[in-house]
Amino acid sequence: MNTAETARLLSSHFKVWQHLTKADQDSMVEHTTLMRYPKGTCIHNGDNDCKGLLLIISGMLRVYMLSENGKDITLYRLGPGDMCILSASCVLSEITFDVHIDAEKDTELLLTSAPFFQSLVERNIYAECFAYKLAADRFSDIMWAMQQILFMSMDKRLAIFLWDELSKSSDDTIRLTHEQVARDVGSAREVVSRMLKHFSSEGIVELSRGGIKIIDKQKLRKLTA
Amino acid sequence: MNTAETARLLSSHFKVWQHLTKADQDSMVEHTTLMRYPKGTCIHNGDNDCKGLLLIISGMLRVYMLSENGKDITLYRLGPGDMCILSASCVLSEITFDVHIDAEKDTELLLTSAPFFQSLVERNIYAECFAYKLAADRFSDIMWAMQQILFMSMDKRLAIFLWDELSKSSDDTIRLTHEQVARDVGSAREVVSRMLKHFSSEGIVELSRGGIKIIDKQKLRKLTA
Repeated sequence: MNTAETARLLSSHFKVWQHLTKADQDSMVEHTTLMRYPKGTCIHNGDNDCKGLLLIISGMLRVYMLSENGKDITLYRLGPGDMCILSASCVLSEITFDVHIDAEKDTELLLTSAPFFQSLVERNIYAECFAYKLAADRFSDIMWAMQQILFMSMDKRLAIFLWDELSKSSDDTIRLTHEQVARDVGSAREVVSRMLKHFSSEGIVELSRGGIKIIDKQKLRKLTA
Repeated sequence: MNTAETARLLSSHFKVWQHLTKADQDSMVEHTTLMRYPKGTCIHNGDNDCKGLLLIISGMLRVYMLSENGKDITLYRLGPGDMCILSASCVLSEITFDVHIDAEKDTELLLTSAPFFQSLVERNIYAECFAYKLAADRFSDIMWAMQQILFMSMDKRLAIFLWDELSKSSDDTIRLTHEQVARDVGSAREVVSRMLKHFSSEGIVELSRGGIKIIDKQKLRKLTA
């Protein structure tokens, strides 16, 4: 990617671009690199990592929490045009916890290095404010996910998830393993499998090797209410 | 409280005071009121409320999430000298969820009205940045609480909670109901009662009407590790 294209992308997504001096704009472009991550790559690995600010061009990132014993809960996903700030949380002194970030599809993104971003945030209040606002936005997503996990009954959560996936799917089959579904609804695989079995016995889904086929949409829809 | 005292308190806690014009400083003092809330008062009631920025002088606030069916999870507490921003979340466009806030003790606080704070944030980038930084700080507390709730086994969570309470207590008895404990560890009363019974049968605690007496500190300590 040439510098003009990088500058164009940054100026349209990094909303405080016009509050940067020309020198900082040039410097930001200089410290921004096009990166390609194949599906499955771990991009940001909790406390140990501080990549920098990300601007996703294509693909998808999954941001999640990981427990000591490997339990994994999806917080949110980011797609083309989204910026990722928790990959630069070391720059933001008030953010004292960390997340993990994987490429869920083959992903192309612009990475603005953490040391540069740190210095920018220190000398430009607009950049600092942008970063914290972006974090607040993500936290709102996280709180939403948490409320689902903590408060909503499992059958409702699973029904809502299947309903959402159904709307993205080209046919009536959701091609995900129980493991993947469990991760996304913030539960254990055993719990999801048991609930899917129950849905199956209720004639709502049909389970097969290929995935989860929705056979009674009306019944499923009812459960999401 | 006279205006000089209000100005003194704001200037020492609202960290961007020196970035305000003299007119805004005066106006902020003018729009800040001393409030007294007896223990148990609901200060901020989710979506329906937008009190403003709070600066706690004495007492204690509890910030929590509430589910539709009344399940209640403590997110964090605020004490003297702390500022509360989620009581003004309507001012911050990027924060799109809401919490509940109660006075857990008799509480005195300074309330800067939401409409004034809104206008201040709109014209002063430092005030805006302060608000989002404060929110990020609280979100870090929330994430910590969530990690405990989602990932840690119940016995460990309960042991850590009892250990913390023990250190605050003047004797070996924790004077809380099982209901209160459940709220603080983010679980149901039944689950907490069952676990306490188990702790009791292990000779770690003694349960009575008066509360939870710790009788084997070493054993309890071990469980927190």
